[in-house]
This record gives sequence, C-alpha cells and structure tokens, in this order.
Amino acid sequence: MIDHSQEDTASFISLLEKRWLANHFVCVGLDPEYARLPAVLKEGHSIEEAFYIFGREIIAATHELVCAYKPNSAFYEAQGDAGMRALARIIAYCKKHYPTIPVILDAKRADIGNTNQGYVSAAFEHLQADAITVHPYLGREALAPFLQRRDKGIIVLVKTSNPGSGELQDLPVGPAGEPLYLVVARNVAQKWNSNGNCALVVGATYPSDIARVRAVVDDLPLLIPGIGAQGGDLAATVRAARNSRGSGMIINSSRGIIYASNGADFAEAAGKATAQLRSDIIFHRDK
Amino acid sequence: MIDHSQEDTASFISLLEKRWLANHFVCVGLDPEYARLPAVLKEGHSIEEAFYIFGREIIAATHELVCAYKPNSAFYEAQGDAGMRALARIIAYCKKHYPTIPVILDAKRADIGNTNQGYVSAAFEHLQADAITVHPYLGREALAPFLQRRDKGIIVLVKTSNPGSGELQDLPVGPAGEPLYLVVARNVAQKWNSNGNCALVVGATYPSDIARVRAVVDDLPLLIPGIGAQGGDLAATVRAARNSRGSGMIINSSRGIIYASNGADFAEAAGKATAQLRSDIIFHRDK
Repeated sequence: MIDHSQEDTASFISLLEKRWLANHFVCVGLDPEYARLPAVLKEGHSIEEAFYIFGREIIAATHELVCAYKPNSAFYEAQGDAGMRALARIIAYCKKHYPTIPVILDAKRADIGNTNQGYVSAAFEHLQADAITVHPYLGREALAPFLQRRDKGIIVLVKTSNPGSGELQDLPVGPAGEPLYLVVARNVAQKWNSNGNCALVVGATYPSDIARVRAVVDDLPLLIPGIGAQGGDLAATVRAARNSRGSGMIINSSRGIIYASNGADFAEAAGKATAQLRSDIIFHRDK
Repeated sequence: MIDHSQEDTASFISLLEKRWLANHFVCVGLDPEYARLPAVLKEGHSIEEAFYIFGREIIAATHELVCAYKPNSAFYEAQGDAGMRALARIIAYCKKHYPTIPVILDAKRADIGNTNQGYVSAAFEHLQADAITVHPYLGREALAPFLQRRDKGIIVLVKTSNPGSGELQDLPVGPAGEPLYLVVARNVAQKWNSNGNCALVVGATYPSDIARVRAVVDDLPLLIPGIGAQGGDLAATVRAARNSRGSGMIINSSRGIIYASNGADFAEAAGKATAQLRSDIIFHRDK
C-alpha cells in the first residue's frame, strides 16, 4: 500500500485555497436524474454514457468559475453499475483536464473504524475523489480512517439544509442548552481537525445557524448546500459564512445550474448560471 | 414505477418474525476482506468471483440457523465495480434459494429527502435488499423516502458498538439530561415508526444502554452488532435485548463466523460457529 499521508502538495485544502484566491466560491453539484436529462443526451446513448457526457460538458462549461465539483453518490448508485461507472469516469475526466479543481464526493458515509477503511478505499483510491462528506453520529474515534488522510478533505455534517434537520440537530445539549449542531461544530474544529483537513456542512436555509457555527470554528471551510431550488437566501448566507479573510465558503448549487436549460444548450446555460452565482457571491461578500 | 407499498406479504418484519418463531436470532455479517479470504478461494478466481463464492458458501452452510444476513456495503465498495457486482450476486443468490431469510444492507445511508430516493432505488430495486441501516442525524423528515417503504426494514443507528460512540450519542439532552441515543430511540419508536417498519441498532459492547433502549421502545426489533471480535458480552446482551416475548433480537456476528477457519473448510467452520452462537443465545434468552 502507498502511504498517501504525506502528499500535501495537492491536498484538498491547498487546492481549495488557490481557487478561493481567484474568487471562486461556487461548487457545482453534479446530481443527474435520468428523467431530467436533456433529450439530446438520452437519444442513442446508454445511461452511463448520458450521465458521463452530461457531467463532462457541465464541467467543461464551468471550470473557470468554480472552487469545486460535488457529485452526490446517491444519484449514481440509483443506476447501479452503469451509474457508478459514469461517476468514476466523470471524476477521472475532471482530475485529468482540471487537476487544480478539487472533487468532493458527497456520499455522507460513516461506519465503525474497521469498516470505514472500505469507504476510504472506495472514495479515494477507486473513485479518486479529493474529499468526502461524513456523518458525525459515531464520533471522532470511528472516523479515524478518514481523518488520518491529511491529503483529503473530511467534510462533516453539522446543520443540514432540510426542513426537518432541527429534530436532532437543534436539541439542547448540556447545562448551557447549546444546540447539538453547535457542539458537533466545536468538536470538529477543536478535536477532530488535528490534521487540518476538516470542513463542515451547514445549510443555506439556516443563515443564522451558519453565523453561530462560524463564530465557534474560526476560519474552517464551510460547505453550504441549499441555495437555489431549496430556497436558501444567498445574501444572508454569504454574510454569515465568510471567514475573517472574506473566504472559507464552498457554496453549492445543483439543480439551479445543471438544469438551467434542458435543451441542447444545457452546458452553456449551466455556465451562465454559474457565472451569475459567482458574481452574486462576490457582490455580497464585498458588501 | 411499481407501487411496492402494499407488498406486506413478504415484508422485512414478517420474514423476521417467522425466523424468530423458529428460535433464529443470529445474523451473519457478510463482510469480506480480500486479504483474509481463504487461499483456496483466491487461486484462479477474480475478486468478484472470490467474494461471490465466499458469500454463497457461507449462506449455504448457515441458512438453517439464522434470522438474517447482513452484508456491509463498505467491504464491497472497497473493491469498486467488482465488489458491487459480487454484492448484487450474493443477495440475488440468497433471495433465490432462501427467499424466507431477509437480507439487511448495512450501508448506513442518509441524505436529504430528494436525494434519499437514489439510495432507496440502489438498495431495494438494484440490490433487492429487504432492509437498510440509516443514520438518524438528518431527522425523520429527510428519511421519508426510506420510511415510506412499509415492505422494507429501516434500521436506525441509535447506540453504535465502537469505543468512541459516546462522544455524541451519550451527550445529555434537555432538562432531564437524557443521553442523545435514548432520545433518538424514543423518537423512532413513537414518531418514525408509523408504518411499523423500523428497527434500531444498539451495540453489544454497551449492554446497559441496550436495556435503557429496550425500556423505551416496547417490542421494536434491535439489530445488535459487537459480539465476538468487538468483545460484546453475549449473556448481558441477550438479557438486556430480549423483548416481552423473549424475541426481537437480530444478533450479528461477522468475523467470528466468516473467518472461523481460513482453510478449505471455511464454510463448514462458519456453520459450526453459527450453530454454537445460536445455542448460546437461546440458553441466555431462556435463563
């Protein structure tokens, strides 16, 4: 086995920092649903090929405008082997042609320690992703196989964008009655991040919670879903999420970009939507 | 799309209840690591074939002694496409030859609602599993695509078997300072289980926590990992886990069964280890 632990030169965090320096904060969520793909891609193509071309063309049309790509594994797993082959090919295409753009595998994994090694191999060796999203529920000890990979980004769910995320994440914990998500955020920032490779997921649908998280995690990167189709407020999100350097944000949009058009111009439309979101983020960031 | 919601005749819970009536409480964890497979399986076989034969032979040698099989997805995903093909073939073999034994996909999934539909398709349509394990962190609302499948088992992580599970799961919640895992257990039993398809994961490494969970969830099925290699105490676990009918337990063993021998007699040894565990469970259950 190769020891990847010292490969700091192109670590997730270092790639991300360089993209931020060029004012790139948009992350494009590559989440294809077969029923919603442009007809032009479905004609004469297998599912694998249609997914691959869709991802490839959107990357080609947006690569000068983004800080990261984030394929969500569920959309590919839904199609069985064909979907997983498309996912591997999309990531390989991105790594080959745009090696400075990190790819986040949004897989929301987490098992006990011994077992996580399998997910580490799947995400980082087989699929060649630069980062992965993980559930916090099993604690730092279980996530050690992820956290040990200092070259990779380990992005922990803290406050998710869904309407019912408060059921557990807002529960009052301890004598101070702090919401659970804030305890998770602080644990990650203060205890889990000894390799400097952690980031946090906080949803754009809860900007005041983003502000509370930012206040306890210093300049840690925040991955923020929920803009666009889910209704998150961009201005409030950016104001709450920016760190002390006006940076530290990975702002994801999926449906608003990848389905900007369902015609033959889908990639061009995705490029325009990405450019618009990029400008809007910079505008709010600088205000 | 076929509406699976009314297929109650062979639901996960009904299959499980029939196995319990025959005093079957052992769940065999089908978690192959290539390095640990018997040499006889690796010679002249691809990884896919070696995994498939390993799973098939263990199922054939244990099927009269178990309540369920539980392949953990991480071990198959670690091998890329070959592993996933083996997983699909192992489940298909089990469903074809032993259709009365439920298969639990231990995948520990959970995303927001829209996205979970992909995992539902992957687990229940593509892989044909009868049940899946899920993380609770995103709440009931997010898990609706899973919970709506009344024919399938939705097995929620409550108190996991790993040494560090207490970091979040034992946090004191609310004015009563109840541990988080107990709040999750009660929410599942009282709010998430409206289709009668929920079960809970509680680790054998924490028998007193199993007892606290059993006290608040009535007769809900408990999936219990941690026996064997992880060091869980079987007698204490069974006493704490049995429900009012002396049943309700899915007691998992992986390494203790599948690696009982690494010679050509691996399947026979797995059968003996399963038979021994089955007797031990019944002994402690009846004491």
